[in-house]
Amino acid sequence: MLKFTSFSDVENLNDLIQEALNIKRNPLQFQSLGKNKTLGLVFLNPSLRTRLSTEKAALNLGMHVIIINVNQESWAWEIRDGAVMNGTKVEHIKDAAAVISQYCDLVGIRCFPSLTNREEDYNEQLLNQFITYCSVPVISLESATRHPLQSFADLLTITENWHRPERPKVLLTWAPHIKPLPQAVANSFSEWMRHAEVDFIITHPRGYELHPDFTTGTKICYNQEEGLQKADFVYVKNWSSYHEYGKIVPANDTEWLLNKEKLAVTNNAKIMHCLPVRRNVELIDELIDGENSIILQQSHNRLFAAQGIIKKMLEQILTTS
Amino acid sequence: MLKFTSFSDVENLNDLIQEALNIKRNPLQFQSLGKNKTLGLVFLNPSLRTRLSTEKAALNLGMHVIIINVNQESWAWEIRDGAVMNGTKVEHIKDAAAVISQYCDLVGIRCFPSLTNREEDYNEQLLNQFITYCSVPVISLESATRHPLQSFADLLTITENWHRPERPKVLLTWAPHIKPLPQAVANSFSEWMRHAEVDFIITHPRGYELHPDFTTGTKICYNQEEGLQKADFVYVKNWSSYHEYGKIVPANDTEWLLNKEKLAVTNNAKIMHCLPVRRNVELIDELIDGENSIILQQSHNRLFAAQGIIKKMLEQILTTS
Amino acid sequence: MLKFTSFSDVENLNDLIQEALNIKRNPLQFQSLGKNKTLGLVFLNPSLRTRLSTEKAALNLGMHVIIINVNQESWAWEIRDGAVMNGTKVEHIKDAAAVISQYCDLVGIRCFPSLTNREEDYNEQLLNQFITYCSVPVISLESATRHPLQSFADLLTITENWHRPERPKVLLTWAPHIKPLPQAVANSFSEWMRHAEVDFIITHPRGYELHPDFTTGTKICYNQEEGLQKADFVYVKNWSSYHEYGKIVPANDTEWLLNKEKLAVTNNAKIMHCLPVRRNVELIDELIDGENSIILQQSHNRLFAAQGIIKKMLEQILTTS
Repeated sequence: MLKFTSFSDVENLNDLIQEALNIKRNPLQFQSLGKNKTLGLVFLNPSLRTRLSTEKAALNLGMHVIIINVNQESWAWEIRDGAVMNGTKVEHIKDAAAVISQYCDLVGIRCFPSLTNREEDYNEQLLNQFITYCSVPVISLESATRHPLQSFADLLTITENWHRPERPKVLLTWAPHIKPLPQAVANSFSEWMRHAEVDFIITHPRGYELHPDFTTGTKICYNQEEGLQKADFVYVKNWSSYHEYGKIVPANDTEWLLNKEKLAVTNNAKIMHCLPVRRNVELIDELIDGENSIILQQSHNRLFAAQGIIKKMLEQILTTS
Repeated sequence: MLKFTSFSDVENLNDLIQEALNIKRNPLQFQSLGKNKTLGLVFLNPSLRTRLSTEKAALNLGMHVIIINVNQESWAWEIRDGAVMNGTKVEHIKDAAAVISQYCDLVGIRCFPSLTNREEDYNEQLLNQFITYCSVPVISLESATRHPLQSFADLLTITENWHRPERPKVLLTWAPHIKPLPQAVANSFSEWMRHAEVDFIITHPRGYELHPDFTTGTKICYNQEEGLQKADFVYVKNWSSYHEYGKIVPANDTEWLLNKEKLAVTNNAKIMHCLPVRRNVELIDELIDGENSIILQQSHNRLFAAQGIIKKMLEQILTTS
Repeated sequence: MLKFTSFSDVENLNDLIQEALNIKRNPLQFQSLGKNKTLGLVFLNPSLRTRLSTEKAALNLGMHVIIINVNQESWAWEIRDGAVMNGTKVEHIKDAAAVISQYCDLVGIRCFPSLTNREEDYNEQLLNQFITYCSVPVISLESATRHPLQSFADLLTITENWHRPERPKVLLTWAPHIKPLPQAVANSFSEWMRHAEVDFIITHPRGYELHPDFTTGTKICYNQEEGLQKADFVYVKNWSSYHEYGKIVPANDTEWLLNKEKLAVTNNAKIMHCLPVRRNVELIDELIDGENSIILQQSHNRLFAAQGIIKKMLEQILTTS
């Protein structure tokens, strides 16, 4: 694996899941693999879980970690090719990526969408420019349209919580929020669920349809109550509109806030969320902290998801060097 | 030791002092203790000494260190239970603490007081919420009302500078400042001195009385000259009013600024300050840099204080795991 | 070597070059040298290449690295001796330097010029104050007037690209920019080139003369075309005026922007720049990305330059301890 930015970089999903679950049983078993290797973590946006879990994953594999907080600690980046750089951007991503990869063996990068320019965001301009000019393997720590480390951890969590022969019913339900959020977590979750051994369905108000690339073939349902029927896993997440790009489309939001009564029609569903969560806006305390919540298991699995991916990449690097 | 947030977490003070002084003689002697263990350092406020000394202490014990600058690098935290999070706070401390402790074996946290809400500050709401939801041991890197690592280093410094059989006279004297500062250092120093083998006395202008929890039984003196009489150690520190909470109570400040003449009545007292110090506002250059100053010895001992505490915690973790 | 802040700290240039080139052949060969030693990196200004290359260099030598982002993570520093600190500066550099060096074995510091007070900048007040109060060796990560790690890497790059018996002609040419930049890179490059086995010449518009300390004896030429004649290396860099200190002196800037036609008179010159570069303002894409560009080789050599210097310092520390 020489790139991990979307589901399509996964060669063998089942193998990857087993790798991560094996690592979870003994996180230090591959500690010699990363000896003298350096992981650079580039942040253009805030991060808690991703920052810590990826750093810890690398440490568990014996690597060094170098953190780069762009804008705060370094120079703002221009991303347009051929730009006449007479504005506020001091360095071109072309140069920054080339330079960073001279000092690191592997690089992770977090770059959120603008939510104002849909084309640029959905072309993953920043991420792709970075990858083009980076001479070492790149891991997405969440980009404009995807958050694959999160989705991988989500799938690990579902796997750990399902022990029956039939496929579980997994519902992704839109949740209210006060600010426009990226579609990345929802996009990625859809992408991964469509390839996993699950029956996947999405429910959201009209106007919040995701980009068809992520949902074609997936059942969409505008009635939350119907979506919840016999669900085994309920993934709660807000996202802003893709069609009215980056907007909060008028909708009777509070109707979409879950409660125990609504969940009664599920199959005693487990509750999932990627965090951070605005408590009592997106999801109520009672459900976040309730016995069916597997939210903290998701964040814990971020560690093993990251470690699985970094391990695959280290193996590739060591094979080819 | 599974928590270090105040003097009351110390089981045996003399043992702890001897531990730290032993570490100082050979800082690397317990280097295998922290192998593969990670210390997370969470900063909600600026830090120089605490940041560096605690990081170095952990490295000396063979640990990895992960730094988390909240607000700058991560999301602002809500601390009120049951809050409807529709404001500017993006993540609840409940979730942040739970998540951080999934990736670390030990967590240090710095959280200054608001100085506007006395009740919240003196309930140590943030620190206590963090501890409640953190699943690993927590070290205070200075909280709303206490700075125990500082006080421990201060006591080590006094111990190293006193070789007579009788108890030294230790004076904490209020100093002028231009901004309202927390009471944390003064509170903690009082708390530790009351339990140490010293004669402790505090002098400050009327209006600057500390919370009685920290001073009951301690001699308070409103006359600095009287307080200085035969003092062996003079600890200089500003704090804002506890009673008119967070305020600078009108007082003829400059009268409280020390000089050599005033110190003539002491027993050739050593001068102490926790740093940072506003030179020539709180304390004059001549005294900070003078031969009686043991200020840099205090900051040096921050390293061994931190290392002593982390060692105790690692031993506890290794015993119970 | 107990200090590395300018060329004058170099004892034997040829030996230093060979050291760095030897390290480049096997960067991990001296990995035991820095065991249990800590490098503190203090940043008062942004940094990408310097931050990463110096951190990686220290890791390659087996050291730990502690990062200190002053202003962001710590307290703003007062640098004037005897200052009454009743303004916005919370800590004196005297105390900060003393404290930092208690926790580190070696300290790097980056401190840009104000560009408003020439005397203070050219006295290197901040750097010199820091060194005065620092009890361990100090490496400049770029100061008000010099950037020696950059110049050392530049010289390594020239050395690697020159295999003829005669001296290469090295030209430093001023380039347009939209903001006033420090003279540090140009000063340092001049200082190093004057001592290297090269024929060195500087070309810039009138008004951009550097401080004579860095250029006395060096050929200055106000006609870029003439300067370019038969050049083997063309180092492109903007700097603001020294005489009208920190100003952009009126000049027909765009005339100084290089292109392929202008370079035709060179000896098929290699193109150099220290980065970050404002593309198509200072230097056009075609030249930055062209086959004669050795710009990324320069940034790569930052790693080995840093490692060479740190190695010399570690050897000194280990000898004297």
